[in-house]
Amino acid sequence: MEPRKPSESFVVMTELVLPNDTNVFGNLMGGRLMYWMDIAAALAAGKHCNAPVVTASVDNISFEAPIKLGNVVNIQAKVTRAFSTSMEVHLSVYGEDLTHQYKYKSNEAYYTFVALDPNRKPRPVPPLVPETDTEKLLFEGALRRRQLRLILGGKMKPNDATELKALFQP
Amino acid sequence: MEPRKPSESFVVMTELVLPNDTNVFGNLMGGRLMYWMDIAAALAAGKHCNAPVVTASVDNISFEAPIKLGNVVNIQAKVTRAFSTSMEVHLSVYGEDLTHQYKYKSNEAYYTFVALDPNRKPRPVPPLVPETDTEKLLFEGALRRRQLRLILGGKMKPNDATELKALFQP
Amino acid sequence: MEPRKPSESFVVMTELVLPNDTNVFGNLMGGRLMYWMDIAAALAAGKHCNAPVVTASVDNISFEAPIKLGNVVNIQAKVTRAFSTSMEVHLSVYGEDLTHQYKYKSNEAYYTFVALDPNRKPRPVPPLVPETDTEKLLFEGALRRRQLRLILGGKMKPNDATELKALFQP
Amino acid sequence: MEPRKPSESFVVMTELVLPNDTNVFGNLMGGRLMYWMDIAAALAAGKHCNAPVVTASVDNISFEAPIKLGNVVNIQAKVTRAFSTSMEVHLSVYGEDLTHQYKYKSNEAYYTFVALDPNRKPRPVPPLVPETDTEKLLFEGALRRRQLRLILGGKMKPNDATELKALFQP
Amino acid sequence: MEPRKPSESFVVMTELVLPNDTNVFGNLMGGRLMYWMDIAAALAAGKHCNAPVVTASVDNISFEAPIKLGNVVNIQAKVTRAFSTSMEVHLSVYGEDLTHQYKYKSNEAYYTFVALDPNRKPRPVPPLVPETDTEKLLFEGALRRRQLRLILGGKMKPNDATELKALFQP
Amino acid sequence: MEPRKPSESFVVMTELVLPNDTNVFGNLMGGRLMYWMDIAAALAAGKHCNAPVVTASVDNISFEAPIKLGNVVNIQAKVTRAFSTSMEVHLSVYGEDLTHQYKYKSNEAYYTFVALDPNRKPRPVPPLVPETDTEKLLFEGALRRRQLRLILGGKMKPNDATELKALFQP
Repeated sequence: MEPRKPSESFVVMTELVLPNDTNVFGNLMGGRLMYWMDIAAALAAGKHCNAPVVTASVDNISFEAPIKLGNVVNIQAKVTRAFSTSMEVHLSVYGEDLTHQYKYKSNEAYYTFVALDPNRKPRPVPPLVPETDTEKLLFEGALRRRQLRLILGGKMKPNDATELKALFQP
Repeated sequence: MEPRKPSESFVVMTELVLPNDTNVFGNLMGGRLMYWMDIAAALAAGKHCNAPVVTASVDNISFEAPIKLGNVVNIQAKVTRAFSTSMEVHLSVYGEDLTHQYKYKSNEAYYTFVALDPNRKPRPVPPLVPETDTEKLLFEGALRRRQLRLILGGKMKPNDATELKALFQP
Repeated sequence: MEPRKPSESFVVMTELVLPNDTNVFGNLMGGRLMYWMDIAAALAAGKHCNAPVVTASVDNISFEAPIKLGNVVNIQAKVTRAFSTSMEVHLSVYGEDLTHQYKYKSNEAYYTFVALDPNRKPRPVPPLVPETDTEKLLFEGALRRRQLRLILGGKMKPNDATELKALFQP
Repeated sequence: MEPRKPSESFVVMTELVLPNDTNVFGNLMGGRLMYWMDIAAALAAGKHCNAPVVTASVDNISFEAPIKLGNVVNIQAKVTRAFSTSMEVHLSVYGEDLTHQYKYKSNEAYYTFVALDPNRKPRPVPPLVPETDTEKLLFEGALRRRQLRLILGGKMKPNDATELKALFQP
Repeated sequence: MEPRKPSESFVVMTELVLPNDTNVFGNLMGGRLMYWMDIAAALAAGKHCNAPVVTASVDNISFEAPIKLGNVVNIQAKVTRAFSTSMEVHLSVYGEDLTHQYKYKSNEAYYTFVALDPNRKPRPVPPLVPETDTEKLLFEGALRRRQLRLILGGKMKPNDATELKALFQP
Repeated sequence: MEPRKPSESFVVMTELVLPNDTNVFGNLMGGRLMYWMDIAAALAAGKHCNAPVVTASVDNISFEAPIKLGNVVNIQAKVTRAFSTSMEVHLSVYGEDLTHQYKYKSNEAYYTFVALDPNRKPRPVPPLVPETDTEKLLFEGALRRRQLRLILGGKMKPNDATELKALFQP
């Protein structure tokens, strides 16, 4: 399969925070945001592999800056690395108050997707070749995040996670 | 007020066609698309004027290529011209079948918005200065479309629509 | 095919404006209204031709009187004219504040639908024979509006629109 | 307060059965229908008393004929009798398959609403004066249904329900 | 078929009251609650008979204590008695204000479901054997409620409802 | 503040997978599940602290067994540990096919919430005292997971995460 560039999978999603999306403080609920992020990330993964994809895992997400009712949610998604049948997608989420011309970063996250064939079995995806410096950095980090996912999912022993382990050495 | 560029109001919205968005043929219903277009266009107008906006009118829309269940809807919106208290927004709508790598134009439309002050009265908006050739063309056509809107809304007599009338001269 | 009367396609739709349907001013968003109008109009067209229909085009709509949160939306739709495989539907939209016994006209619009056979090809629809004076007026105007749609859709040259052109003659 | 006629409270609601409204058999779920009926009935009650209303009770409903995906739901609601601060509303529900020109009765039901003042206390509503024979019949039956509601709600002893009791006498 | 216990069909559903679920007083609309109750009851019936079920009827419901925006809705459903192809389900609905540690009963209701085979014909369901005293009481009352349903649905004459009739004897 | 038991915060949420919740394979979309999990977890946290809460972070989630259209989603949430102003909630997600009497574990996850006072500032929450062996295990693991969250959120250096570091020692 022909390798692909990260920019080919780039997806921008824009949503408006409506009353039913908010908690008692009038801020976007975390669950609604994760729902939109899942769709944006699935579309980025689908653009990379041209096949149906399903969510395999979501990395740790922290919710820093709440997005208010009536503000705009801007989600940017891009594939960071392709493994044999799966892809890691990086997401940046921004809130924007149009009236006050105030745009703020709300979140960052990594979602992982698996490509499926018509029998719902994993199928190979094209490799990804990063171009910019940021893309290269995200590409390299992807291995470490993958080890963390495997450990957290109980599929790898911490001591076999060579890359990750190095982080804890003095 | 400082003039603004069309690119400053540019909005990209990406949506996935889900079962409840479709008619019996499994195609996106026109009304659902107009709902998304309205939000995308309102955000573009809001970015231009940094004030709350409400939909004033929608020009004739034809639905050419239907967008299928599971396909991606890509809506691009940009302000084409600012009048004293209103803004015309141009929208391009594309459908995309990720699996078959097939992206197709579905629609084009113009929505007009009015900016409101806290008392819900129209308020002045910054002028728009087009930059690219396409933007200049859209800017010029905006006057003619506005005359048509005024005639169709019963607020101008056809014979006073100088620009539009010229189209019907031999 | 047996001709049909406009009254046979008459549809009344009643909706309540809920929080998620409103903008920051607590008024019904234009896009949500167009969504409901599309369904009401599709049902009127479907009653006329007894076949599945899809939205072909929507004429210029202006949003005059906003409908408030908690108010009632009343949409009335009726076919105005049938062409070979398409139908024009006229819509009147009213808002109603039950507590203040205040009913007001909010909008008027024309939607056009095409009837489809099981292979998704256009299929013939019955002719429409107007009865009342209002129905006759709408029937006659339908030709002119159709020319305008064809011109705006780039499918007819302005100078071939005989009916429409007459409007611009001194 | 001026008495009102049943026809003044008449409400017609039309809905299209979409995928998310259906069960595994592709038929409208009972709960979704009760949701629409509640809104239609509340609007009829609100038209009668010109005040905010809340659902007080719903009588026994049986679901006879299921309404299919893509069919039209037609709900007709009308106040049958006004008590001091409450109103009984009668609903008829029809399904309609536009393609097969087949309209069928799906349901009948009675909902009861209470009118509230701004402090959320029950407030008086105008009396209702039935006009047609059907309206008179519904008006008379309303007393008997009210007794049944009070018994079923534990607020009246069966032997005090004079009207209802008569039904069980040989 | 093996008899089942009521506890095997027990379902707990928890929902949060969001803005779009409320009326102008900020209280949960009756219709939205009936929608959730229908799903909870259908799941209880489905657990009892392990087959697809459809709503057959809903008994008289009174709405006593309104549930507020931001409060929690807690619905508990359990089959009370199985007839040849149908099941009666009892529902208790509680509202809960987490901040004020205040939990209150809002409703009680009975929904009846029919089990269907793949041809959409009623199919036999397992008998139910009540265990606790409350379950036995609900089991016995089910016959009387069934007679009432048949009378109200016009399928039984009041004088044939032996159990129910006894309630009206001095 | 009085300490609380984990069982006091226990929440069960039951949902039915409807068409609009599914991807092209007819399986529940990951984002929709995360939305429901967020609400269930928020309710558990709210029960523990009797104050409004907002989502602070979500730990790594893997999606093992997909839940099918028409199946039941069963979410169980319980607070595992309270820190000064935040609470960790453990979630177990099960799918259930009622017709085939097949219940399967789909997911496990940890969400963290912060309690807020009326000025939206973090406020103290009661301590949690685990009772059962499982609760004690979850309570102890909570410290390690918290270190991981702080590292992943860039708020702690890996070498300061004493508990976590021990996992990587030979």
